[in-house]
This record gives sequence, structure tokens and C-alpha cells, in this order.
Amino acid sequence: MSSIYGEMLKVSLFGESHGGGIGVVIDGLPPGEKIDLDLVNAHMARRAPGRAQWSTKRKEQDAAEILSGFIDGHTCGTPLAAVIRNSDTRSGDYSDFASVPRPGHADYTGSLRYGGANDIRGGGHFSGRLTAPLTFAGALCIQILARRGIKVGARILEIAGIKDDSPFSETASLDFPVVGAGAAERMKEAISCAANECDSVGGVVECVCSGMPAGAGDPFFGGLESRIAAMMFSVPAVKGVEFGAGFAAARARGSSNNDGFCLREGRVWRESNNAGGAEGGITNGMPVVFRCAFKPTPSICADQNSIDLRKMEETRIRIKGRHDPCIVPRAVPVVESAVAVVLLDMLMTRASASPWNGAGFGG
Amino acid sequence: MSSIYGEMLKVSLFGESHGGGIGVVIDGLPPGEKIDLDLVNAHMARRAPGRAQWSTKRKEQDAAEILSGFIDGHTCGTPLAAVIRNSDTRSGDYSDFASVPRPGHADYTGSLRYGGANDIRGGGHFSGRLTAPLTFAGALCIQILARRGIKVGARILEIAGIKDDSPFSETASLDFPVVGAGAAERMKEAISCAANECDSVGGVVECVCSGMPAGAGDPFFGGLESRIAAMMFSVPAVKGVEFGAGFAAARARGSSNNDGFCLREGRVWRESNNAGGAEGGITNGMPVVFRCAFKPTPSICADQNSIDLRKMEETRIRIKGRHDPCIVPRAVPVVESAVAVVLLDMLMTRASASPWNGAGFGG
Amino acid sequence: MSSIYGEMLKVSLFGESHGGGIGVVIDGLPPGEKIDLDLVNAHMARRAPGRAQWSTKRKEQDAAEILSGFIDGHTCGTPLAAVIRNSDTRSGDYSDFASVPRPGHADYTGSLRYGGANDIRGGGHFSGRLTAPLTFAGALCIQILARRGIKVGARILEIAGIKDDSPFSETASLDFPVVGAGAAERMKEAISCAANECDSVGGVVECVCSGMPAGAGDPFFGGLESRIAAMMFSVPAVKGVEFGAGFAAARARGSSNNDGFCLREGRVWRESNNAGGAEGGITNGMPVVFRCAFKPTPSICADQNSIDLRKMEETRIRIKGRHDPCIVPRAVPVVESAVAVVLLDMLMTRASASPWNGAGFGG
Amino acid sequence: MSSIYGEMLKVSLFGESHGGGIGVVIDGLPPGEKIDLDLVNAHMARRAPGRAQWSTKRKEQDAAEILSGFIDGHTCGTPLAAVIRNSDTRSGDYSDFASVPRPGHADYTGSLRYGGANDIRGGGHFSGRLTAPLTFAGALCIQILARRGIKVGARILEIAGIKDDSPFSETASLDFPVVGAGAAERMKEAISCAANECDSVGGVVECVCSGMPAGAGDPFFGGLESRIAAMMFSVPAVKGVEFGAGFAAARARGSSNNDGFCLREGRVWRESNNAGGAEGGITNGMPVVFRCAFKPTPSICADQNSIDLRKMEETRIRIKGRHDPCIVPRAVPVVESAVAVVLLDMLMTRASASPWNGAGFGG
Repeated sequence: MSSIYGEMLKVSLFGESHGGGIGVVIDGLPPGEKIDLDLVNAHMARRAPGRAQWSTKRKEQDAAEILSGFIDGHTCGTPLAAVIRNSDTRSGDYSDFASVPRPGHADYTGSLRYGGANDIRGGGHFSGRLTAPLTFAGALCIQILARRGIKVGARILEIAGIKDDSPFSETASLDFPVVGAGAAERMKEAISCAANECDSVGGVVECVCSGMPAGAGDPFFGGLESRIAAMMFSVPAVKGVEFGAGFAAARARGSSNNDGFCLREGRVWRESNNAGGAEGGITNGMPVVFRCAFKPTPSICADQNSIDLRKMEETRIRIKGRHDPCIVPRAVPVVESAVAVVLLDMLMTRASASPWNGAGFGG
Repeated sequence: MSSIYGEMLKVSLFGESHGGGIGVVIDGLPPGEKIDLDLVNAHMARRAPGRAQWSTKRKEQDAAEILSGFIDGHTCGTPLAAVIRNSDTRSGDYSDFASVPRPGHADYTGSLRYGGANDIRGGGHFSGRLTAPLTFAGALCIQILARRGIKVGARILEIAGIKDDSPFSETASLDFPVVGAGAAERMKEAISCAANECDSVGGVVECVCSGMPAGAGDPFFGGLESRIAAMMFSVPAVKGVEFGAGFAAARARGSSNNDGFCLREGRVWRESNNAGGAEGGITNGMPVVFRCAFKPTPSICADQNSIDLRKMEETRIRIKGRHDPCIVPRAVPVVESAVAVVLLDMLMTRASASPWNGAGFGG
Repeated sequence: MSSIYGEMLKVSLFGESHGGGIGVVIDGLPPGEKIDLDLVNAHMARRAPGRAQWSTKRKEQDAAEILSGFIDGHTCGTPLAAVIRNSDTRSGDYSDFASVPRPGHADYTGSLRYGGANDIRGGGHFSGRLTAPLTFAGALCIQILARRGIKVGARILEIAGIKDDSPFSETASLDFPVVGAGAAERMKEAISCAANECDSVGGVVECVCSGMPAGAGDPFFGGLESRIAAMMFSVPAVKGVEFGAGFAAARARGSSNNDGFCLREGRVWRESNNAGGAEGGITNGMPVVFRCAFKPTPSICADQNSIDLRKMEETRIRIKGRHDPCIVPRAVPVVESAVAVVLLDMLMTRASASPWNGAGFGG
Repeated sequence: MSSIYGEMLKVSLFGESHGGGIGVVIDGLPPGEKIDLDLVNAHMARRAPGRAQWSTKRKEQDAAEILSGFIDGHTCGTPLAAVIRNSDTRSGDYSDFASVPRPGHADYTGSLRYGGANDIRGGGHFSGRLTAPLTFAGALCIQILARRGIKVGARILEIAGIKDDSPFSETASLDFPVVGAGAAERMKEAISCAANECDSVGGVVECVCSGMPAGAGDPFFGGLESRIAAMMFSVPAVKGVEFGAGFAAARARGSSNNDGFCLREGRVWRESNNAGGAEGGITNGMPVVFRCAFKPTPSICADQNSIDLRKMEETRIRIKGRHDPCIVPRAVPVVESAVAVVLLDMLMTRASASPWNGAGFGG
């Protein structure tokens, strides 16, 4: 299967980049949750294309129409379906990619997967555009989590090898979601420079989720890291995910990597957060911290080596179309949304799996 | 939920480190597959404790008794259950960890998750010992994959910051699974050194799977990377997973990171493998390459800061018991087994999801 | 969870009777399958309301707009989403049912389930109208199955205790899907008679699926009967499901109920079909035969006993609105569609689970 | 897939009738639940073979060894695995059934499903013996439910066409689980009579579950009836399932079939229970009532028509071995156990899906 995520909260994505519309069905949302649609739209605007110099020129309003599961400003608990129409599509740009696939895209693999029957225009179902309904779904979850004291925030940690050493803080109010102003300027320059050279750059997004209660998650395949990583690697262009100290932990010693226990204001706390919020896959009450590596946008306007699959001949390809020289800024709200879906699903699952009091069943 | 992995091939782990036994039920194995149990045992011996200086002194034969789904040396297709008895258990070593949890272990989080009702001895269900039945399950899958030309191999890339720059090759025949002899010696020294200092070290395991056909996997949540990462992060101590160029891709430009197409002996091939074997979550016919970061073993014999949860007081803890100063060597066959489960599940799922010819249904 | 069905073919229903729209996402359809939309619409028209005297006066075109997963007349293999707009809604008819629930409806239970946050108008998500997108999904599956020699057909066996003793034949071309003309007339009279008395009647639908290959299905929870029954009991108003001889088998002796083997034109066949197409949950190559009991429409215009939940007082309720005095005729294409989803899901699952030849993986 | 049931509580069956052992892994049990193993064994003894004249002569102690997830008399919350060894096996009795399949058994279909690789001895994985671990799993659930006021009980309603008109009451203390003493005698006679004639008889089991809270279950595919029916049709020999008035509802009018609301001791109650405990798939607080039709035991010692699959010739088969002339008495505790698994799973799922109060997450 493919495009359905979740255990108690199921998010089902559909759509192709240049088809009739893209969307999502969210099954299992808690009922009676108030949702501020202006906040949802503001969150989605951070992902929307066409906003800035580093973004594709394709303009989409990304306005989601809610068809079900929502009435008078609150969730019903029943499946909530939302549709985003595709408008500014120029399919002619993509006509040949079925036979001459673009390196770094899913033209070749998607074609194999679906026996050539899939809609390849604009990347089809594999398009980064499918992160729009995911971002929408997450925007609802973010509000539901916030009501319970759980905050989700992400920022750009690194672009084109330029790292922002500033301590983490939220970036939702920033046009360019980098905490350090100096690093932000240098990153923008690196993006412009790559764009001018018909090239693209990647980067790293860091996400911090605070307020997550301890005791959520399941051992082994249902652990926090497994759930978040499965979600994050489904975001196009993600090639690495690490939690807490991550790969640096592999170079540390146990004595420095272990997060010693301490008391803070009478509550169990840790002297450090190298684990990134979980032990044994179960949340430990510390902030959930992870980082995702995004590869450089594969769409570049330079000539690239490809194959003409009809003739089985090597050939060259030049991608026209409209693309982001760096996808990382727009990926920040996607990461926030994606992890919000995971955390809400975990909390709903935990509500069921936790020990019950003797008197009756939870809820 | 927790301890069940898979879509068409479901692997269900059970057991506690010091309980009656640990084991696995594998549901969905293809029927009629010959399995060489000597090879299975040899593979499991690579993971077994007590073999070497860098390993815990606990000795377990790790002999799996197959109860069902297997007859006359071949799989039946029905659920295959296997049990490994626990023998060399010293539960007294662990008696206090419910009230004074060990940093870096799941004592605290597991206790919250299960309301204190879980069996904490030896880490209980969260113990690294649960990788034994996972390794068993993967050993079967490795043979089934090998019969179809798919090879799975892993090696230690790095321990305690010491990196092996040798090109990848298999390590199943090596006592210490490091390709470069020089690097191997330096890594062993680093482990001994840490052990002598009551400390531990971590490392990185690299895994390469060749022969995987193109076109397997699903978009988004069912992609190759999502599936493998969900599995790998369920292996205790893994804190980071990256595919192909991984985090380095975040620092590369699109022009160098894109894997250009070429023809090799008439087949579609790539000039590089920065993607690590998949685009859009679908395998592209190149080797599947990923790396897992393992944190240093949390069990160290130095004093550590903890909390007495009954008194809600800060306290110190000293872990006795028997532990590996470095878990990485024993993790190598676990990674191989774990990815084999994922790949076989993907192939079985693909068999169903692929386009059918007009004449009838596959199989 | 709730509104998602299936293993390899997942059908996700959404919508409320009087909301923005209802629809379905079908994930896992085989790619490249030609679909004749005129046939789909003709099939859906059999279910649509407002067609005849025995049907509700509510008129809905039930035109499904396909948003994704479909291009140039064939499936893409990616999630196929379809939306049916609600048009002829008179929500005022339903305003009080949250506080004074209708007997036989889900007003009371749905309200409890969703804490009163659900959209109750017209039955909301529990409305029989949700069978429209299910019927749409099944209409696609029916064509995909037919291409492989599998035919799905249903008929009314009984209404208001009046039984049609005619042998089974298809009824797609009939306005009133009863094989025997005499029985049809008597059933129509019984419906009219009940309607005139402000009452309603139920009935039994029989479904026969021929051409299903032997060997599909799984033991225990994945057996043919378990899968079909789980689907059929999700169709509103179904209160009983039986396969083959069904409840009559409970009164038979083994010697007469066992379906003896024989050869027919060189193929394995059975002397009878009391099993209804499966043994051990696995199809045996005989037609799949089952019957569903539909209760009488709960909406009747007579006064009924209810409770005012705000005052916790007994009260009387009179349902106005528009309802079918007998839902059974419109249920016939729903049953056909519903079983088609199940059978296609089973066949796709089987393609993966079946033994593979030595050369490689299926598909 | 096949042998795994459940959403939040997963029950995974394994084993073959004549293999090393059969068993179950129960994942998701609430932690800290006290279990009285004597009660578990007493419940399993009601299902065990060899107890009475109407039962197979095969004697199995059916003693389940718990391997994990259970300590000091209570559940841990982690996967609970239990193994039942096979002891009294006479495999020679079954040697020919792969090539000359028994009518009414899964010899033929199982062989197709698994390409002939499955273990056919004693019915293999399809054997009614697999209901032993299911009965064990349910025995735990019954105790967990009882602690919360939910009682599960079943009784024989009918055997060989002889019906017991007595009102429902529990039968756990009866050797022959029929409420009416007169009917019990006539049923026993009918069984003896069939056995003497080398034949077998079937029957109907009725199950009543009281105390189930209103508001559990999900719309459509997750409804009470869908969940229970999927479970019941996985019990070997079940050919029909009906809820409340069931098939009789198809002959009733809406005015008599609707369950009018009333108040009873200040609580919402119903004047009748034709729905059998749910509307829209959601429990309504009334007892859950359903009936299962069991076909006559297919193993009869008379000659039957079969096929020699090697020669593709029609032939005759005579089954020796040991069989129950009527499986229905032993099925009663199986039905109780099976529904207990379903209800506990539903309650745990409901705990997660129910509306949360503003302060925090449930549990």
C-alpha cells in the first residue's frame, strides 16, 4: 500500500500534481476540536510556492476545501476530507519524462512501479506538491496538540553547508525560517548563487517538539523514532533522519551520551537530551528533537545524463519547468505538520494502550 | 500497538530478557522455501553474546526451536513460530531499576508506558536480547532473498570515531566485522580502552543490499526509506539512519548529487548511487545503501545520576550486571536480518501491487 | 478507526449526508485498468434515490467526480479519489434528532461515539447515502474482475416474507431486481401496502460471484467469509449474513452437507455448493454464494417512542423527511459493489501470498 | 495475511494440529491485569477434546505455557505468548489427504493456497485445534472484561434442528451447555443417533454479552457487527452469523422491529433488542446478542466422493481418525472467548477514539 499513514489517526493522501486535485482524508481525529482555519491557512502559506525568490514560480493558492467531518468550526470525529484544486499547471513541460526520465526524480521508478500507467505530469503522485495536503492535515493536528501544551516548531539548521549555530527557536513568523540573521543572509546568497549557476542546494531542518508527555509510544516497531522516521522519509527529498545527538552519538562515550536523571521543580528531568526525547521508543518527557537532511532539488536547468527508454539509448536532458533552487525553506512547515500527525496519532494510541483504572475504560 | 512489523510478511516479536522465553511469529512467509538451519544458526551466532572480549559475559545458546510453519526443511506458508529459551539469567542484578532507573535505558519510560506492571528484569521486553528472534526471522528471509539474487551484507564503518575507509565488502566470515584490518585493530583498542575506563563506545553500521529489483516500494509512507528506517529505529540504540549520500547530500549541489542515468551491459544503470537505491520511495535497481548510527552502550560501570522514584530524590546509580562495552559488532547481523525482513515484505507486497497481465492474477 | 477497508486494496469512505460532499479514496487499484465510466454510472443509477415509488423522494444525481489516480480512461495505480456533491438536502428535517433520537438509527449511538460533535443531519456519516461512494468503488472493481472472468451479481430473494423461488440469475437490467415476475409483483404490493400504513419492510439479498479462482483467502481472520461478512455488516441495515447453505447447514447432516468432489470437464468440481465457495476460508473454485438480511427501514412516519435526552424524559417522535419504505431494491447494487471490493482485495493479496516460482518474484 | 486479528489488541495464532505446538501471541493487553489461571484452565477445559461421548477421542491436556508478558499473576502489557504442546497425534491417519482431499475440510483449498507446502496432518493450520489458543486468549479477555462489569456467555440454541426455547442463561457450569434440560436430552440423542449412522450434525450457538458500554465501535468497517462477524466466521465450521432479530428482521415491519427508547431506572433503555446491541455499528448499551450457525462436522466415517488429484480421477474416501459427531458443544466456550477478544479490542480502541476532555489526553 502506500499513501495511508497512522494507527489511530489515519492520514490518506491522494492526488497528482497536474490532475483534478490533491487532498487528504483524515480518519480518527478527536471530535469536538475547534479549528481556526485562518491559522491553518497561515501555516499552509509558509509552504505554498511562488512566495519568494528561492521558490518555484508556480503559484497555487493551496486553498483547501473541507468536504466532511467538520461543522461549525469544529471537528466531528468522522473522516475529514479536504481537497485542493490544481490550477496553475503547465503539463506540456513534462511530456517527455516518461521516456527520458529526470535524474533524482521518480519518473523512472514510478513508471516501473505502475507499469507506465501513472500520471507523470509534474511528478504526478510523487510530486512535492503532495506535501500540501499533508501540511493541511498537520495544521489541524498542531492546533489540537497546542491545546494540550504540546508545541511543534522547526527551523533551518543548515543550507549548502552553511550552518546556523543559534540555539533553537521557532520560525513561524519569519519569511526565511533561519534563527540567526547572519546565517540566513549567507544561506540566501548560497541559494541565489546556485540558482544563477543552474544548480540547486540542500540542507538540514531541525525540529523540536516540547510538552510531549512521557510514556507515549510502543516498543520496537511502534517507537517514537520509528514512527517519526517513517513519516519523515516519506517527505520527498529527505535522505537522513537523526534523533537527539544522532550520528554524533556514535562518536561519543556512554558516560557523556547518557542523559543523567535530575529533578527540576520537583519533576523528573534530564541533565542533557542526547536521546532526543525517547528511550526504548517511549517518550521520556524531554523535548522531541530530530533533524532531517534534504537533498538538493533534483530539478536543475543544467544538462544531465539520462536514457531514452524507448530506444534504450543514452541521451541528455534539460529540465525546463519551474523549480525551487532550494526546497528547504518550504520544507520547514511540512516537517512541523508531519511530526504533528505522528505525535497526535501516538497520543491517541497511548490513550487506549495505557493502564486503565479499575473503575472502567478510559474516555 | 508495538511489536508487529510488516504488511504482507508480518513479524511479531515477544518476550522479556529474563522471562520464560523470547521468540517470534512470522506470518506470511512464502510457502515451500527451503531453509538451511545450519546457516540460520551460523548467522545467529554472529549476534550471540559471550563470544568475545567486547561482548557481554552472558552466555546464551540462542537456539531457536521452531514450533510451527516448518516441515521437512521447508516453510509451510503458515505462521512460523520460534522460541528461544532464556537460560543464563541473573535477575537479582536488575532488582532496583524500577525505582532507580538507569540512564539511557527504557527502565523509566517502559515503567511509565506499562504503569509499572512490566517485567523490568534485564530490560524486559526492551532488552537488546529481543534482537535475537528478529535476527532469526531475518536469517530465514536472507536465504529466501539470496535464492532470488538479492544479497544483504553489513559492516562496521566506524567505532568511537575511528572510520574504516575501505570499500564495502561482506563481513559474515569475520570475527570482528570490519573490512580494513588496520581500522579493525584500532577500533578494538578503542573498545578495550573504554571498557577499562568503565565506559562504552558507539559506532556506525553500513548496509548494502544488491540485486533488489527496480519498482518495489510505494509512494509516501510505504517507501523504501520509510520502511527500512521504521525497522532500523526499532533496533535498540539506533539514533540516526541515512540513505545513500545521506546527510552529506544536504551539503551537495544538485548537479553532483543527482545520479545520472547510463547504460551498463544494456541495462539501465546510474553513474553514482547518492540516492542509495530508491527515488520516490521506489527501488531503482541500484544497491540499497544505508547507515545506522548506534549510540554507546548505556550500561557503564561508572556511577551515574539517577532518581529514586519512590522518594523523588536525586541519587547515584552504579550498574553491575554484564554488558558490552560496544554493541556495534553484534549489531551487524541484526541490521542484515532486519533489512532482509523489510525487503522480503516489500517484494511480496510488490508481487501483489504490480500491474497484472490481462490473462489473470499474479502468482 | 472506522472508515477504511482492505488489505492490499484500501477503500476509505468519507462524508456526511448533508455536508459538502461524500466520497471515497481507493488506494491500491491495479494500474492500467480501463474503466468505462458509462458502465460505472449505470451501476450507480441502480442505487440512486428518487427513481421509483419504493424509493425516497430525495433526488441526487450521484455523479462522482474523479480527482486523481485516473487518466485517459484508465487507472494510474495511485490513490483514486472521487467526490459526490450533496445537492438536494433539507437539513431542517433533522434538526431535533440529536436530542430526541430516532429508533433504529445511529442518532443516539453516533452522538455518544462522537461526544455530540458529529454532524447528525440526514444521519450524517452513518447515512445510507455513504453507500454511494462504496458503490462507485465497487463499480470499478466489478469491471476489473469481469476482465478476468469473475462475475458478480445479486438479486432480491425475499421481501416482507415473500420469497422468490426462482433460480439465481442476474438482475442488473431489471428495474426491480427480482428474478421471478410473480414474486416481484407481490413484493411491490407488500411495499406499497406498508408505505400506505406508514410502515416499512425488509428483505434478503442473495449474491453469487462466479469465476473466482480457487486458493484465494487466508486462514482464520483473513478467510473469505470473514472478509465478506465484515464488509456486508458495514452496509447499513444488514443484520445477518450467511454463506452457502448458511443457517440451514446447522440443521443438515454431514453426509448431505459435505460437498462431494467430482470432475467436470476435467476440472475439480463439487456435487453441491453448501459451503458457498470456500473451505477453511480459502476459495474452492465454486461460486461464492451468500445472503444478507436487511432490516426494515427504520424511518417510518408513524409515531414512535423516544427519549428527550436533554430533559431525560420519555417522549414520542414522528419522522417526517423522505425515506424508502423498503431499502432492499437499492441495496442490490450496493451488495454487488461491496463484494467486488472484497474479492479484488483478496485477489491482489493472493498475488503476493502465493508460492513464487524459483526464477523470481511475481508481478 | 491471515492469522492476526485486532486493532489495539492483536491476537496472532500459530501452529499446526500435528506440529511441535500451537499457540498465540496477544499484543496490546492492558498492563497490570490480574489473571486467575485456574479460571483460564477451567474455561479451556470446556473446549478440550476427549471429555464426553459427543467429543473426539483425541485427548489433549491443552495446558498453555505462558512465555512472556505475564509476571506474578498479572499482565505486563507487553506481548503475552502462550504455547500449547501437541501430544496425542496420530499423523498416519491423515497421510493421504493431500492427494485425496476430504469433502468439507480445507485439505484441497489449503493445498492450493500454499502450493502443497503446508503441513496437512490433522488439518494442519486449518484444524479446529487452533481454536485452543484462541480460547486461551479469550479466557484472559473474559476476566479483564468481567472486572469492568461486562459478562460474556453462550449456549446451544439448536442442534440437528432441535431448538431450545428456554430464555438465555449462562451455561459455563453445565457439562452439556443447553439451558433446557429436555432439549438437552433430545439433542444428545440426535448426536448419538447420527454417530451411530456414521454421520454428524450441526447447530446454532447463541451468545449474549451484557454490560457493554454504549458508544463503542466505529462506523462502517469498524462496526460491532463487522468486527464480531469477521471473528466468528474465522471459527471453523461457522456458516452464518446474525445479530439481534437477524434474518427474522427481514420479515418484520419497521414499526415492530425498531427498538423504541424508554427510561429504566433513569437510564436510557430499549423496549426490545432487535438490533442486538448496536446501531450504526456503535454499541447502544443493550446486550450484544448474536447467533452463529455451525455446519455438521465434515469428518464422517461414511464413504464420500473425492478426487485423486495425482491421477485426476474420481474416487471414494473413508475417513478414519477421531472426530466429534457434533462440534457445537465444544464451540460454546470458543464463541465466548472469540467475542471477548473482539469486545476488549473495541473498548481499548474506544478509549483512544473517544472525545478527550480539555485538560489532557485520556489514560
